[in-house]
Amino acid sequence: MKVELVAVGDELLIGDVVNTNAARLGRLLTDAGMRVTGVSTVGDGLDELVEVLHIAVDRADAVLVTGGLGPTSDDRTREAVARVAGVALRRDPDVEQWLRDRYKDTNRTLTGMGLQQADVPDGGRVLPNDRGSAPGLAIDIRGTAVYATPGVPHEMAAMVGDQVLPDLLRRSGSPAPRAQRVLRTVGVGEGVVAQYLESLEKDLAAAGAVEVAYLAEPGETRVKLTSTGPGGTEAVDAAALRAYELLGDCVYAEGTEPLVAVVARLLVERGATLAAAESLTGGLLAATLVTVPGVSAAFRGSVTAYATDVKQSVLGVDARLLAAEGAVHPGVAREMAEGVRALLSGTYGVATTGVAGPDPQDGHPVGEVHIAVAGPDGTVTVSPRLPGDRDRIRTLTVVRALELLRRTLLGLPQEHARECPG
Amino acid sequence: MKVELVAVGDELLIGDVVNTNAARLGRLLTDAGMRVTGVSTVGDGLDELVEVLHIAVDRADAVLVTGGLGPTSDDRTREAVARVAGVALRRDPDVEQWLRDRYKDTNRTLTGMGLQQADVPDGGRVLPNDRGSAPGLAIDIRGTAVYATPGVPHEMAAMVGDQVLPDLLRRSGSPAPRAQRVLRTVGVGEGVVAQYLESLEKDLAAAGAVEVAYLAEPGETRVKLTSTGPGGTEAVDAAALRAYELLGDCVYAEGTEPLVAVVARLLVERGATLAAAESLTGGLLAATLVTVPGVSAAFRGSVTAYATDVKQSVLGVDARLLAAEGAVHPGVAREMAEGVRALLSGTYGVATTGVAGPDPQDGHPVGEVHIAVAGPDGTVTVSPRLPGDRDRIRTLTVVRALELLRRTLLGLPQEHARECPG
Repeated sequence: MKVELVAVGDELLIGDVVNTNAARLGRLLTDAGMRVTGVSTVGDGLDELVEVLHIAVDRADAVLVTGGLGPTSDDRTREAVARVAGVALRRDPDVEQWLRDRYKDTNRTLTGMGLQQADVPDGGRVLPNDRGSAPGLAIDIRGTAVYATPGVPHEMAAMVGDQVLPDLLRRSGSPAPRAQRVLRTVGVGEGVVAQYLESLEKDLAAAGAVEVAYLAEPGETRVKLTSTGPGGTEAVDAAALRAYELLGDCVYAEGTEPLVAVVARLLVERGATLAAAESLTGGLLAATLVTVPGVSAAFRGSVTAYATDVKQSVLGVDARLLAAEGAVHPGVAREMAEGVRALLSGTYGVATTGVAGPDPQDGHPVGEVHIAVAGPDGTVTVSPRLPGDRDRIRTLTVVRALELLRRTLLGLPQEHARECPG
Repeated sequence: MKVELVAVGDELLIGDVVNTNAARLGRLLTDAGMRVTGVSTVGDGLDELVEVLHIAVDRADAVLVTGGLGPTSDDRTREAVARVAGVALRRDPDVEQWLRDRYKDTNRTLTGMGLQQADVPDGGRVLPNDRGSAPGLAIDIRGTAVYATPGVPHEMAAMVGDQVLPDLLRRSGSPAPRAQRVLRTVGVGEGVVAQYLESLEKDLAAAGAVEVAYLAEPGETRVKLTSTGPGGTEAVDAAALRAYELLGDCVYAEGTEPLVAVVARLLVERGATLAAAESLTGGLLAATLVTVPGVSAAFRGSVTAYATDVKQSVLGVDARLLAAEGAVHPGVAREMAEGVRALLSGTYGVATTGVAGPDPQDGHPVGEVHIAVAGPDGTVTVSPRLPGDRDRIRTLTVVRALELLRRTLLGLPQEHARECPG
């Protein structure tokens, strides 16, 4: 079933609001076995909305509109849906009464504009809203199922989960979700991953049963293997097996488990704890660790030693080393990791130091980074040169620190082999 | 000038990636006086991309495509642009050489697939990329300016800022941006801010020269005053003056300066330094502080005392207090702030403790938060009850901690008056 999304509102076009609804719906519908084929964002103008709706209705089996259902003059979705359906809008007396009661309960005045929320296109039906004042709509237009929900994310999510999705599933019969596996890799770029998989891609293209897609994120690349027909589970599994061989220990997980959760899980499994010492990442590594629920079993805490003298006074980094080499040095990372491990009594200590920019520091270029992991078997360091601006260098440093932890915990070599492991 | 955006990539449709590029571009183009009239998101399939591009080219004066320019088989934007333009793709020898050099420098192999990044449609030109390997494209199609940039946000932003936007501005003449002022408020909800401004809004609606809009973000509300006609600067300034009177010390800045930058600036102006101690925020407060370039002059560092015993061993919180009350207590926040101030020799210490969830802790509900600021004039604490999930509670706690710092540094009362200050 092909589904198109239409998001309504000037605030989305001028960039005041990020369209998170589209991603949320995309995931929900994809997980339910449907295919989201397009997302259109359009402003509050009626003519533009009518035009975009016409196109979406003609292209897809179902259209989901979010936004433009509220009580103010710039809410025109009801009118647009009626116009595309070629029918009149009629005020629904039950909805009108519900609105009057609701506004009375909350001591607000229901204006004439507010009453438009009770208008329903002929042949359509109301989707009740138990979290806000704007009811949704459902109507068939030229064989396409059209739904309209509020744009407020939690109202949208509740209405789609409770009402729209069950309706869509009924209509589509029981869709067979396509077989898919997602291999998550870290430490190598998208192009290198694609190069590792070149022979596999060639064979898959010839066989035509499995599609390969790449998704690059800072420091990571996900490889998606999707069957292109029914019953492709076996083909996807065979492709995944070969991808594992070709990618080697670059693969850190499958599916949706992020790298930080893998590291937290490995620590918990080993009954080990972690302490962090941060310089250029300034708390971001710790903040990333605590996004994992349950990490308190393994995470002791961290020290952000942003000022150089704090590296000495709190973490015990050798004053002569700091005087001779400055703060951007592999030896400083090593002593920070060892120092925080001792200070916070962790099984492992991890540390970051380097230059996030915007300016070079003590003769070291922006992007020079040193990372260390100290543990029961000693201390290892890596010194990558990272690209990008301040934010990106910090994000990449966190990924590389987590990857060094993962490799240490699994007893893998410090960095993946540069050459294709296949 | 009407601009449409087209975002390319299956990952956007299936919800793996949120389309933040659209909001970023929407803001940038709107600020430059252009009108973003639509955003379309489409998958990696060539036919769908061609169809969406045809529609966008016919509707808008300029089209900006993001994504689908990379080195893998699912990158089809070059091909789609050429097809919509009705021209052939040709390999550009200069780009090819640049790619070969770039891949060589980074020890990567340039595959045949990678070489497609050197393909340019006849009549188009290359937009160099100094942050990644995928160059962009610019071409005129039926009188519409079409630009294609990579989808990677920082590559996109650099290419648009340096190359696409100047080109668009040249084409459009010199558009006159509308007069606008943005007042940034903190500590009061969107509804309360709107209530404060009710009388102003009524007068402005009658006069019809200035529009008021509200934009809610976690813990903050921005008030936008925009002239609705030419020459509205005076009307906007008069409205801003009254808004200041009505909102009082809820306004922390104007324009684009975020709260954390205001706090950093106040510290630097006073020659003061700051140390942070974090429990439930787990490093997020420190990570937020270091997003401000130049903050190293004022930020000493931080301790994330995630395990309760670290609050005692490193920050010196009274063991009896911890034993009697647990970690979620205003007295613990106070001692953490004082402890980290002493440990890191800061002029001020700030501390957070509380329950981020998902589960209650030691009988304290999710969202119970205690924040303290210790300084030369003593220590103040606030204990808000914050709504939302784990992430949101952390984000709101950081905002409230920064707001308590701002109030302390400015000698304002601990919290804004609950009543309308006007």
